[in-house]
Amino acid sequence: MTTELVVDVKNQIKHALEEVRKKNIENVFFVACGGSSALMYPSKYAIDREAQKIDAHLYSSNEFIHRNHSKLGQNSLVILCSHSGTTPETVEAAKFARSKGALAVSLTNEPGSPLAQASDVVLKYEWGQEANAFTTNYSVIYQLVFGVLKEVEGNSKFEVIEKSLENLQSVYEKAASQSHDSAVEFGKQYKDEKVIYTMASGANYGVAYSFAICILMEMQWIHSHAIHAGEYFHGPFEIIDEETPFIILLGLDETRFLEERALEFSKKYGKKLVVLDAKDFDFSGIEEEARGYIAPLVLNFVLRKYADNLAEQRNHPLSKRRYMWKVEY
Amino acid sequence: MTTELVVDVKNQIKHALEEVRKKNIENVFFVACGGSSALMYPSKYAIDREAQKIDAHLYSSNEFIHRNHSKLGQNSLVILCSHSGTTPETVEAAKFARSKGALAVSLTNEPGSPLAQASDVVLKYEWGQEANAFTTNYSVIYQLVFGVLKEVEGNSKFEVIEKSLENLQSVYEKAASQSHDSAVEFGKQYKDEKVIYTMASGANYGVAYSFAICILMEMQWIHSHAIHAGEYFHGPFEIIDEETPFIILLGLDETRFLEERALEFSKKYGKKLVVLDAKDFDFSGIEEEARGYIAPLVLNFVLRKYADNLAEQRNHPLSKRRYMWKVEY
Repeated sequence: MTTELVVDVKNQIKHALEEVRKKNIENVFFVACGGSSALMYPSKYAIDREAQKIDAHLYSSNEFIHRNHSKLGQNSLVILCSHSGTTPETVEAAKFARSKGALAVSLTNEPGSPLAQASDVVLKYEWGQEANAFTTNYSVIYQLVFGVLKEVEGNSKFEVIEKSLENLQSVYEKAASQSHDSAVEFGKQYKDEKVIYTMASGANYGVAYSFAICILMEMQWIHSHAIHAGEYFHGPFEIIDEETPFIILLGLDETRFLEERALEFSKKYGKKLVVLDAKDFDFSGIEEEARGYIAPLVLNFVLRKYADNLAEQRNHPLSKRRYMWKVEY
Repeated sequence: MTTELVVDVKNQIKHALEEVRKKNIENVFFVACGGSSALMYPSKYAIDREAQKIDAHLYSSNEFIHRNHSKLGQNSLVILCSHSGTTPETVEAAKFARSKGALAVSLTNEPGSPLAQASDVVLKYEWGQEANAFTTNYSVIYQLVFGVLKEVEGNSKFEVIEKSLENLQSVYEKAASQSHDSAVEFGKQYKDEKVIYTMASGANYGVAYSFAICILMEMQWIHSHAIHAGEYFHGPFEIIDEETPFIILLGLDETRFLEERALEFSKKYGKKLVVLDAKDFDFSGIEEEARGYIAPLVLNFVLRKYADNLAEQRNHPLSKRRYMWKVEY
C-alpha cells in the first residue's frame, strides 16, 4: 500500500512538472491559510536560498487576492493548499490566480474538493498516523518546489531531497520515540499555563507559527505568539521572566545562530523553557545538504506529540472548537 | 526651521535617487529590526502593488544575513533603518549587502552613526513631538520608495505621495485631537490587562506588529501578538471571548475587507474591542489614491497616544526596560 502511494506521489509530481515546463515560470506564490500556510514557510526559505531566477512570495489567501501583487501573471506558479479543499479564501485565490493567467497547483487531501476543481493541477497528499512521511503535505510540497527549481533553472538538489524524504519516516519514528518522555513531561508541567510563546527562525519559523496559532490558540485556547528569534532582541524579549513559558526550536539551517542566541539569553532570564533541538535527533538517511531543509519537518512531527500530551493533560481535545466550523464567519 | 528640514529631506532623497539611477535595480530588500522593520511593511505593500519590474523582500537584519537570499547582488537596493544607527545586526547587514555589490541606503536619526558609515547613502530623519511629519521615518522611506519606482520604472505616484506627505502633519494633529478622549479611556480601561492582541492586514499590518512587540511587549511587559486579519479565521479567532482585549485597525487600502470581516466577527464574540478606523479621520490634503498608503501612518501616530495613556495609567513609563540596553545579549 505504502509503495503504491509513494509511486503515486512521484507520478503526481511528474505530472505537475510537465505543466510547469509548458510555462515560463518567473515567480512562485505560496497561498494558503493558517496551518496550510505555515507548512509553506520552509519552501519559501528553500527558494530564497536556492533560486537564481525565481522569486518566492507567501501570503494568506485573502491577502493574496486583495493585495493583488503586480507581478502575478502568466509567468507565475501559484501553489495553494487546503486540507479539506474547502477553505473559501483559498478556493477563491485559485480562481483569482488562474484569472491572471497563472498556473495554479493545489495540495489537498480531497482530490474531488472545490479547491481541486478550481486548480490546474491537484496533488493529493496522505494524512494521519498511518501515512508514510513521503506522502504527506510537507514532503509533497518540497518535491514540487525542488522539482520546479530543477525544471526551471537546473538546480541539482531534487534527487537529494527526494531520497531524503524517502527516508524521513524512520527519522520521524526515532525522534518521536526519543521525545516521548519529554512530551509527556511537557503536558504535565505546562497544562495550567495561560500563555506559551514559541520561537524559531529561518526554515523553522513556520513550525513555531503553526504551533502558536493552530495548536495553542485554536485547539487549546492558550494565548500565544510565534516570535522570530532575530526579532526577539528588538522588543519581545522584554516579556520573558521566570514565569513565562517559551518553546524554543533549534533547526539545522543557516539561521541556527539566531535560535542559539535567543536560547542563550532565555536561559539567563527565563525558567520555563521547552527546547527542541534538531541536533538531538538521528538524521541517518537524510543527506547532509538536505538536513537544514528537513529539520522543520522533524520538529513539527515531534511537536505534535507535545500537543497530544498537552491536550490530554488539560482534558481539552485537539478537536474541540467554539467557533471554527460551528458558527458563521 | 521646518521649511529648511523639508528642503533638506527632499535634497537627501534627490541624492539617493541619483545613486539609484547609476544601478540597474531589480529588487529591493527592506532590512531592519523590531520597530524599524515594522515601519517598512507599508513600503513593501506599495512595491508589491505598484511595481512592474522590482521585487520587494523584507527580513529582520540577522535573518537577512544568514538566510543569504540568492537574488541579493549588484542589482539590489537594500534599504536599512536603525534609529540610533547602532543596531549591530543592521550595521552588519549593511556591510553584508555592500559585500554583495548591492546599494545600501540607510535611514537613521544619527548621520554619524556606525550604520551611516557602513552605508552608501544616508537619509537622516527627524523624530519627536516637534518634528514635522514630512521629515520623519515613515515619510522619508515612502519618498525613497516611490522615488525609486519613478526612477526605475516610471511609476507616476511620486508627486502624489510627496504632496500628501507635505500635508500629513495636519492630518496627524486632527486625528490625535479627535482621538484624545478614546486614548485616555483606553489607558483607564485596559491598564490591568495581562494580554492585549492587535490585528490588521495589508499596509496596516506593520503598525499592529509594532504596537504588539514594541509598545505592549517591550515597553509595557504585556503579552501580545499581532494577528493578521486574514489568518484570524484559521486559528487565532478561537482565542477571543468576552475577557480578551483586541485592538483592531481598519485602514483604507485594498485589504480593508479583511479587517472589516475580522471586526464583525469579533463584535459577536468579544467585548473588549478597541477599534481604530482610518475612515473616522479627516484625510483632507491627502490625495485620494494615496489614502490607502497613508492610513497606516495616521493609525500609528494615533496609537502612540494610546500607548502614552496606557503607560501613564499603569505607572510604567514607555522608557522602562529590564534587559534592553541594560544587560548583555
